[in-house]
Amino acid sequence: MNKEITIDSIMQLGLGFWASKTLLSAIEMGLFTELGKGPLGYETLKERLNLHPRSARDFLDALVSLGMLERNGSNYSNTAETDLFLDKTKPSYIGGVLEMCNARLYTFWGTLTEGLRTGEPQNEAKTGGNLFDFVYGDPARLRQFLSAMTGLSMGIGIALAKKFPWKEYRSFVDVGAAQGGVPVQIALAHEHLTGANFDLPVVGPIFDEYVASFGLSNRLRFQGGDFFNDPLPAADVIIMGHILHDWNMEEKRMLIKKAYEAVPSGGAFVVFEAIIDDERRKNSFGLLMSLNMMIETRGGFDYTGADCCSWMRDAGFRHLRVEHLAGPDSMVVGIK
Amino acid sequence: MNKEITIDSIMQLGLGFWASKTLLSAIEMGLFTELGKGPLGYETLKERLNLHPRSARDFLDALVSLGMLERNGSNYSNTAETDLFLDKTKPSYIGGVLEMCNARLYTFWGTLTEGLRTGEPQNEAKTGGNLFDFVYGDPARLRQFLSAMTGLSMGIGIALAKKFPWKEYRSFVDVGAAQGGVPVQIALAHEHLTGANFDLPVVGPIFDEYVASFGLSNRLRFQGGDFFNDPLPAADVIIMGHILHDWNMEEKRMLIKKAYEAVPSGGAFVVFEAIIDDERRKNSFGLLMSLNMMIETRGGFDYTGADCCSWMRDAGFRHLRVEHLAGPDSMVVGIK
Repeated sequence: MNKEITIDSIMQLGLGFWASKTLLSAIEMGLFTELGKGPLGYETLKERLNLHPRSARDFLDALVSLGMLERNGSNYSNTAETDLFLDKTKPSYIGGVLEMCNARLYTFWGTLTEGLRTGEPQNEAKTGGNLFDFVYGDPARLRQFLSAMTGLSMGIGIALAKKFPWKEYRSFVDVGAAQGGVPVQIALAHEHLTGANFDLPVVGPIFDEYVASFGLSNRLRFQGGDFFNDPLPAADVIIMGHILHDWNMEEKRMLIKKAYEAVPSGGAFVVFEAIIDDERRKNSFGLLMSLNMMIETRGGFDYTGADCCSWMRDAGFRHLRVEHLAGPDSMVVGIK
Repeated sequence: MNKEITIDSIMQLGLGFWASKTLLSAIEMGLFTELGKGPLGYETLKERLNLHPRSARDFLDALVSLGMLERNGSNYSNTAETDLFLDKTKPSYIGGVLEMCNARLYTFWGTLTEGLRTGEPQNEAKTGGNLFDFVYGDPARLRQFLSAMTGLSMGIGIALAKKFPWKEYRSFVDVGAAQGGVPVQIALAHEHLTGANFDLPVVGPIFDEYVASFGLSNRLRFQGGDFFNDPLPAADVIIMGHILHDWNMEEKRMLIKKAYEAVPSGGAFVVFEAIIDDERRKNSFGLLMSLNMMIETRGGFDYTGADCCSWMRDAGFRHLRVEHLAGPDSMVVGIK
């Protein structure tokens, strides 16, 4: 046996669900929200979270070892990251997405093998529901979900505001912008721009409230609609972020065509997503996200920059380019 | 917002179950066994595994990106590691443990939060069964499970054969040695030693067969028994590997006491385990393994080197020391 070949990487990956579920349970229990007010001693924390003594210390110390908590003596506290992003009382909370993973996706991924064999979704669709009913059906859940999406898109919005040549344009429409995390960052950075969020009507009040909190209501408006039944509102730039991957090939091409129709000659179409590297060797997150689209949708899938460029070229866009934004996300840009 | 603080590490950990379950499904489907005979083209592999075309490429390329497969053109092949350890036809196969994770633990960890709140196991025990019934109840499953344990213990056995001063002793008993992976490595390295496996009688034939395959039947024998009801067989050195963590405090102390009674004055007791670092800050695997003991057992838990030394000292052992063996495992050694 070659000494260099060890089982460690295999075991670490195969047992990776232990560490993952430990963090998801911590979020579910509100651990980081309890610690958002300051460090707590072991006994107090155990009581607040209603933890049984048997595994309480192992649970907390496992989170220390995973870099999600700090421990000083027997006082536990949040790290800078978990304090900012996992304390429910802070506007920067992104735990909603991980709460959703804990409540839904962890179980649905349990039948990944069935999904790989049938190509069928493994979520509520198996019993007649769908993801969007789950998210849009309950107002409180919708608000939290949209807020989580904002947290996840924040870094992307900041990067997109910097990296796209906004000076050459006057207006944009962000299609399916949800709470408005991305349009707000763009509008904050570029005072000459006006923008809109084209999304399902139920999202309107949540968007309007968020935009007003930044004093941007005069430049950012909501336009309710459904991109399957309606044309997209006209603008110099159309943005679609984390939208195309939800849909099948035909629907993707239909949406790209609508974007082409909505911009003037010289206008731009910006797609951002966890774009897979063209060699399909590096961006694990994008490839696994595509499997997640199989779990969650009837026909959705993620794609490479080259894939997206070719679809956009077919629709008439020119000067295509791919540029990294933040984390696993890149943008694909085309000009009409 | 501090630019240095990103959500990436949180999202990577929280969504870690995607990558983990992808590997577990690949093992379940026998992907690495198919590729054990040599590289296969995409179409052939898809057909052999009965993969639906929708996500087949994403699944395989995700495994490439995770370092579990290689791809040359459109031919997929095993890496050196996955070829050695995840091809079922090779004696080095360790996939049995991960098959067990896929079939049982992934789901049981889904109710981690309940376990943390109640301190109760989350496995078959919830419906009246137990892990050992599951493993020992079916001969084929038992054989595969014990073989997987051997694979996992191989590196530890090799390290233990090197790092313990075996020249000072003539005999050893490995308590719960299963198929005998560790005793075989020790006996291969030290011709003057005789050893025994003290384990449940059902394990006997599987141990004898494995030992015979190395021509060691004259030096390694099986002794059937139950460490709750029987004393341990006498020997210069008693070994317990991955045993103590299955049991509660009282049971741990009882087992350590039985080890003390089984060795002569000057004899040694060697415990190996995914020993947690004394500061409980670094060995995530050991801490998560302890949570796994909560999921799997009524009272089991993992522990630090200092914990183990103190229990062994209480039982009468002296000259206590902790030494790293391989991967996450260390040994704790005490002398009577």
